[in-house]
Amino acid sequence: MTIKRSWQGRAFLGMSLDGFIAGPGGDLSFLESEPGKGQHTEIRSDHPALTWDTFFPTVDAIVMGRTTYEKVLTFGEWPYPGMNVIVLSSALESDDPNVTIAHSPEEVIALLDDAGVKNVYVDGGRTVQEFLARGLIDEFTVSILPIVIGDGVRLFGPESRATFAVEGAHIEADGLARITYRVLSNA
Amino acid sequence: MTIKRSWQGRAFLGMSLDGFIAGPGGDLSFLESEPGKGQHTEIRSDHPALTWDTFFPTVDAIVMGRTTYEKVLTFGEWPYPGMNVIVLSSALESDDPNVTIAHSPEEVIALLDDAGVKNVYVDGGRTVQEFLARGLIDEFTVSILPIVIGDGVRLFGPESRATFAVEGAHIEADGLARITYRVLSNA
Repeated sequence: MTIKRSWQGRAFLGMSLDGFIAGPGGDLSFLESEPGKGQHTEIRSDHPALTWDTFFPTVDAIVMGRTTYEKVLTFGEWPYPGMNVIVLSSALESDDPNVTIAHSPEEVIALLDDAGVKNVYVDGGRTVQEFLARGLIDEFTVSILPIVIGDGVRLFGPESRATFAVEGAHIEADGLARITYRVLSNA
Repeated sequence: MTIKRSWQGRAFLGMSLDGFIAGPGGDLSFLESEPGKGQHTEIRSDHPALTWDTFFPTVDAIVMGRTTYEKVLTFGEWPYPGMNVIVLSSALESDDPNVTIAHSPEEVIALLDDAGVKNVYVDGGRTVQEFLARGLIDEFTVSILPIVIGDGVRLFGPESRATFAVEGAHIEADGLARITYRVLSNA
C-alpha cells in the first residue's frame, strides 16, 4: 500500500505507558498531570528524539481528524496561524478560514500534493491509525508518559501493524520517554 | 494497599509498542522476530536501564503465574536451577521439585517472607498486574520492541493504575527501548 507522493507523513504523539493518548471520553488531563514530577532521572542522548521545538518548525502542513480539530478549537486562540491545516472528516462542514475540510483520505492526499508540501504533521489517534494503515506515515515520534491509566482512547487499534527503526531517544526531566522511529513497514 | 515486607518486587518484561507481551493465544514469536534488525540507532546512556545481565543476578526468588510456568516448561531444560521459584495458581497441583505452588497471593507473600528473600522477580502478565494492584511491585523494567502487533495478551489491564519515576533508559542495538522505572504509586 505505497502511494507515490512528494511529502513525508510525520506523527508526534504522547501516550501513557499502557498506550492511551487520552483518557475516557477524550480527557487529556493526564497529559498535563506531570506524573512523578521531580523524581525522574533526565537522560540526555547523542541521538535524541525529536521534541516539539525541533519537530514543529520543520512542518509545512498539518492533517488532523475532527476530534482533534474540535479539541484544538477549545484551546482558544488558533495555534497554527498561517499554516496549511487540513481537517479529515467525512461529515464536517465549516467556513473556518484556518482550515480546509477534506472528506476522505484521498482528498487529503490530493490537497497535499497540490500544495507541494514536504513535511506533514499527522495528528490525532484515528487519523494516525488510518494514515499508518495506508502507508502514509514515515516518521513516528512517541512520548511515553510514566503513567498507566487503564482506560481511554488508544493510539493503536486492533488493525494496526507496524515495524520501526529507532532513530533517536532520550528521557526528559519530566519523565517523558521520547523515541523517534522511522516506519519500516505497516504490515 | 501497602503491605509490610522485607523484599522488593521487581518486574522485567518485554512488550510491543502497543502494549502486548504476547500475541494471540500467547504466541511469543514476535519477541524473537528482531523487527527492523540492523536498522536501529543504538543509544547508550549514563543511566542505563537494567538488562537481563544486570537484573537477573540480583534476584533471589521468582514468582510467576501458571501460564508463564507452563511456557517455561516448554523451553526444555529448567532455566532456574537452585532458584526459589513460586508458581501462583489457584488450581495447579504439581510435584515438580523446581517450584513451590502457591494458591493465592497471600500464600506467595507468606512464602517469600518465610524465605527471607530480598529481590523477587515477578513474571507473567497476570501476576505482574495482580502484584502491581496490591502494591507489591517496586521496580519495573520494560523493554519496548519496535513493533506494533495489534492483538494479543496485554501487559496492563483496564484496572491497572501506576505512576512511575524513570531511573534508567537506553536503546539496544536491536531497537529495544529499555526503561527502568521505580513504582511511585498504584492508584
